Amino acid sequence: MSSNATSSTSSTLPVVLTGDRPTGPLHLGHYIGSLKSRVALQETSRQFLLLADTQAMTDNVGRHQKVTDNVLEVALDYLAVGIDPEKSTIFIQSQVRELYELSMVLLNLVTVSRLERNPTIKEEIRLRGFERDIPAGFLTYPVSQAADITAFKGQLVPVGSDQLPMIEQTNELVRKFNATVDREVLVECKEVLSETGRLPGIDGKAKMSKSLGNSIALGATPAEIKQAVHRMYTDPNHLRVDDPGQVEGNVVFTFLDAFDPDRDAVAELKAHYTRGGLGDSVVKRRLEGILQEMLEPIRTRREEFAKDRGEVLAILKRGTERASAVAAQTMSEVNAALGLNYFG
Amino acid sequence: MSSNATSSTSSTLPVVLTGDRPTGPLHLGHYIGSLKSRVALQETSRQFLLLADTQAMTDNVGRHQKVTDNVLEVALDYLAVGIDPEKSTIFIQSQVRELYELSMVLLNLVTVSRLERNPTIKEEIRLRGFERDIPAGFLTYPVSQAADITAFKGQLVPVGSDQLPMIEQTNELVRKFNATVDREVLVECKEVLSETGRLPGIDGKAKMSKSLGNSIALGATPAEIKQAVHRMYTDPNHLRVDDPGQVEGNVVFTFLDAFDPDRDAVAELKAHYTRGGLGDSVVKRRLEGILQEMLEPIRTRREEFAKDRGEVLAILKRGTERASAVAAQTMSEVNAALGLNYFG
Repeated sequence: MSSNATSSTSSTLPVVLTGDRPTGPLHLGHYIGSLKSRVALQETSRQFLLLADTQAMTDNVGRHQKVTDNVLEVALDYLAVGIDPEKSTIFIQSQVRELYELSMVLLNLVTVSRLERNPTIKEEIRLRGFERDIPAGFLTYPVSQAADITAFKGQLVPVGSDQLPMIEQTNELVRKFNATVDREVLVECKEVLSETGRLPGIDGKAKMSKSLGNSIALGATPAEIKQAVHRMYTDPNHLRVDDPGQVEGNVVFTFLDAFDPDRDAVAELKAHYTRGGLGDSVVKRRLEGILQEMLEPIRTRREEFAKDRGEVLAILKRGTERASAVAAQTMSEVNAALGLNYFG
Repeated sequence: MSSNATSSTSSTLPVVLTGDRPTGPLHLGHYIGSLKSRVALQETSRQFLLLADTQAMTDNVGRHQKVTDNVLEVALDYLAVGIDPEKSTIFIQSQVRELYELSMVLLNLVTVSRLERNPTIKEEIRLRGFERDIPAGFLTYPVSQAADITAFKGQLVPVGSDQLPMIEQTNELVRKFNATVDREVLVECKEVLSETGRLPGIDGKAKMSKSLGNSIALGATPAEIKQAVHRMYTDPNHLRVDDPGQVEGNVVFTFLDAFDPDRDAVAELKAHYTRGGLGDSVVKRRLEGILQEMLEPIRTRREEFAKDRGEVLAILKRGTERASAVAAQTMSEVNAALGLNYFG
């Protein structure tokens, strides 16, 4: 245990637990939806950042290499956007063994029918077409998620509104465990709802996603950024420059809202576009400039870190050791409360 | 890792995995059904004996102390009947952390509906009255059992015929895992069916069980043994000594069949009892003598070990360390196959 971990254990900053399934490199949607706020949160909290490979395995059986390969990619994205591994604890879920142990303890405290009623799981089962063939590990992953949060006594969990049932499930398990052992061992958490809406894909679809081919990766090259903005969905009825155009659902304007710091200029552009006389190419050129400028330092840092993958692994190893020490402390309290501390 | 463990790792003896849920001290039914053969098996196999506290927790939420208290009681029973901790590895399931990890890996490889179809689980859900409120940990315990067996690359698993679906489930998971990673990492196991039938309770009910109050504990005192034999169910129609008596379903004769080494004498007693003229008290006296003689050294050894609980704990600690080393080796192969060996 490093002195850093010791000192942060005794800190009074709130504990934040968040992370990503490593199934592909992160993109602009992640940046605006979570990464940016994490960079801020690391100054005011003890932030644990989970590279959720164990969780990704639950619906990637047979595609385990995709998951393990992307652990390093996501770590590179974290470092590139400015997550500081001295301030945030970045760790690999599968390598913190206490999380398996706590998951198995919590599995006894929830019924199968309760898990089946979880709306998030219901929707994901539908999306994945699992129907009756739901892998047991997938149905039970909210329990594993509860273990991730409670092992670190996470108090704040940044989530989208679709993830609220997960928070509820976690707190139910916390109360059930504490009631079972008749002491306050685990800690309830609270959601931190993202203030920004979800960023659409460049094709206008509701969700930006690598697998849909409508994303802009954080490590995108200047040419890729240029091409993505060029392909962006605008107003299909805005055929001539002189025509009035529509701003709602126009991805270029949605992106300007998300990334252009000059609100007044954006408002003016919107008004001009709406009354007609402003071509898509002008608006796109502005957006491209902003994205190029924003992504340039991220890409450069990413390339720097990517040159020394050994050093990135060393960062992850240190973070994982720090996380393990914290989780081990919680697990020892859990085991003591259950009498599972035979050897002291 | 002790030198003992090292040498047994390289041994070519078959690996046997078996154990008990520690929910009460063991009794004569366990002795004849499994313990006796384990004493023999430790000479011809690498035997792992699991004190299955994790598994017992799945249907003893809120009664965890009953489970943890009985871990030592069952260990005392093992030592008392002649299990030699230098030949057999006696270990506490909850303390071998690799078992949680392997369980979570295997959970991804089985569907919820497959688990629900398991006949053993179906029957146990019925017996426990769980109906729709099945704890997730209970539904998934066959997966945890598969982890127990495969973590040690168990080849032989002594079971009753009601446990055959568990073996089948384990081997399905072995094949699924090996196919997923495209290498032979885990090993299929084979059942060893018990040759002796199940010993009835002293009340004639099909199953001897502490909770039914119809058992004779291995640590029973002479007075308890005497009283138990006295209370034994015989032939309710055998009212006078002269009457012909029935041997089938007569617990005293069932016990003589199980424990009296003199088969000819038992055959003669049965004939005499059947034609009439032999009183219950004569037969019971014979049985009592045999049980007193058989249980006296077991009780004495049990009392000896019970005097030094610290030493018993030390034995369990050594066994658990030995078991962990073996399980860690398997887990490292499993993780390597899945690419979950980021840090080498």
